[in-house]
Amino acid sequence: MIYTLIMAGGVGSRFWPKSREKFPKQFIDIMGTGKSFIQMTYDRSLAFSQPENILILTNKDYKSLVAEQLPDLPENNILTEPSRNNTAPCIAYATYKLYEKDKDAVMVIVPSDHLILKEKAFEEKINNAVNFVTENEALLTLGIDPTRPDTGYGYIHFEQNEESVKRVKAFKEKPDADTAQKYIESKEYLWNAGIFIWKAKDVIAAFEKYTPELNAIFQSGMSVYNTEQEADFIEENYPKSPKISIDYAIMEKADNVYTIPADIGWSDVGTWASLWNVKEKDDNQNAVVSNGKIITTNTEGCMISSKDDSVVVIDGLKDFIVVNEKDALLIYPIHKEQEIKEVLKSLDNSAL
Amino acid sequence: MIYTLIMAGGVGSRFWPKSREKFPKQFIDIMGTGKSFIQMTYDRSLAFSQPENILILTNKDYKSLVAEQLPDLPENNILTEPSRNNTAPCIAYATYKLYEKDKDAVMVIVPSDHLILKEKAFEEKINNAVNFVTENEALLTLGIDPTRPDTGYGYIHFEQNEESVKRVKAFKEKPDADTAQKYIESKEYLWNAGIFIWKAKDVIAAFEKYTPELNAIFQSGMSVYNTEQEADFIEENYPKSPKISIDYAIMEKADNVYTIPADIGWSDVGTWASLWNVKEKDDNQNAVVSNGKIITTNTEGCMISSKDDSVVVIDGLKDFIVVNEKDALLIYPIHKEQEIKEVLKSLDNSAL
Repeated sequence: MIYTLIMAGGVGSRFWPKSREKFPKQFIDIMGTGKSFIQMTYDRSLAFSQPENILILTNKDYKSLVAEQLPDLPENNILTEPSRNNTAPCIAYATYKLYEKDKDAVMVIVPSDHLILKEKAFEEKINNAVNFVTENEALLTLGIDPTRPDTGYGYIHFEQNEESVKRVKAFKEKPDADTAQKYIESKEYLWNAGIFIWKAKDVIAAFEKYTPELNAIFQSGMSVYNTEQEADFIEENYPKSPKISIDYAIMEKADNVYTIPADIGWSDVGTWASLWNVKEKDDNQNAVVSNGKIITTNTEGCMISSKDDSVVVIDGLKDFIVVNEKDALLIYPIHKEQEIKEVLKSLDNSAL
Repeated sequence: MIYTLIMAGGVGSRFWPKSREKFPKQFIDIMGTGKSFIQMTYDRSLAFSQPENILILTNKDYKSLVAEQLPDLPENNILTEPSRNNTAPCIAYATYKLYEKDKDAVMVIVPSDHLILKEKAFEEKINNAVNFVTENEALLTLGIDPTRPDTGYGYIHFEQNEESVKRVKAFKEKPDADTAQKYIESKEYLWNAGIFIWKAKDVIAAFEKYTPELNAIFQSGMSVYNTEQEADFIEENYPKSPKISIDYAIMEKADNVYTIPADIGWSDVGTWASLWNVKEKDDNQNAVVSNGKIITTNTEGCMISSKDDSVVVIDGLKDFIVVNEKDALLIYPIHKEQEIKEVLKSLDNSAL
């Protein structure tokens, strides 16, 4: 059986004031399509998994948001972390829980807040990956064909061959500009998008081998998963786990890691500027997310987001982010968006 | 008896989106002081007139707004125009109504939406004016000591003498920059602020002489003013009156017009830029009207107005107007504010 795990625990204030700590990016219709990222991700998952086989991994603060946005999902399929311990513990928890009821479980793990424009290509690549890991003891990660020497992503270095599935040589941290350029030219690097496909038993083998401490915690719960004792066990033991990422815990260490290069119209849409990159733009290179009336004159290269029940009149802005929310307004140069985080430190918690 | 007439029929969309057709400037606390312009004007009037002797002249659409904002004012003191016919008919109506009950009525006529910072000086000048018109058959207008060669105001040309009250030679339309400069240098010109003081019987004499057609309409109602028939009479006859201003109807023609130069901290606060002029500013010359949290960095010379329940974060704006309202957002270069009017033409009526 193929299970899809949607990772939805992110906090993310980089879309302030549209995203908030209490309402992070994955729950927002930031593209203006009528669906939030997690809803789009869920819809894509239905190509591989029935609703009862889709799990949402999230922080307990967001449980009700998930339930509200995904009404067709069985409520028991929302797994909540009692503490924020990064991705490895939360994947280990879900893995053991699935393994307890299905020893042949195949897992597709996807982030909840990424954009994938080419859904058919995505579906095809996931199917390839599922076939491969079904037949091989392999940890597979989808690698994104890079379209530019981006210094904001981690890279996957793979062994060039004629097959559609490539062996991974190494994972690389975010590179500097020169290194990124070399990566692109070599054609041996892909972007690491955090999309994983493997059998539950194969990743358990890897947890045992590379992170025995973490593994011991979640293995010790095998007798309680899918019982009434599960919640108490997790509440008590989850916070004891080391706080490490799945990349650091396993992927960078294992020798059976594979990748499939994928051209799937992917973006992590991590910031307002990256949203501007993927959005359709008007003749003056302004991208707008709003169903309200927006009038721009002498305005270029702006990323404008406004609540639908507002009129917006702008003149004379060049390369700005303008975000007009009910209780907050942001007007900021798009090339300085990294600085917004600093400014927000002076705000009350209530505004974050 | 001294009666104060507050002229409150203006529409004014120049403070969009804070002012609207349904909620024009005079009813807005645009200064952020806790009182609207009309409330401040009413409070000033109490120095000369009891509430029962203060009349508000406004359009019928605004009657409930006036009643709400001035709860101490007797409701019968709100006179409403059935049509917008400029200032002369509405002053003629109020004049005859007062004259019907008080043949010696002295009238102080003031706009409802101007700022007067020096209230004591204002009070003193009005007292001087009242004394003068009580003893003389004179039409008196308070003239504002000009502080700059403004091309946005009309000017009063007066005869220099040693008295505090000067004879007016002529009224001048908004001048060009060179002419305005000459006016200032001559020290014989004042700004026309639309503040008038006279006896009812003297202005009636002027109406009879200079605008007989208009005068006939309102004189014909003498038997019904202050009776139950007044409303019907006005509803039927008011719209028949020529649509002319009091300046054009009388002031520019009469030969008994006087002025008192007044340094009263006056501004008509006609636009966002003029509000910026009179507001206190921070070290970066930003003026803010809001009780909300406003964070500005690298931002200078801006006029920022925001609803109180919003956070505003701005970086990198210079000389902009930013107005953040519940259902509208304006971001516009302050020096181009005259163009806003054009842009608003493309908006639905509901947003105006």
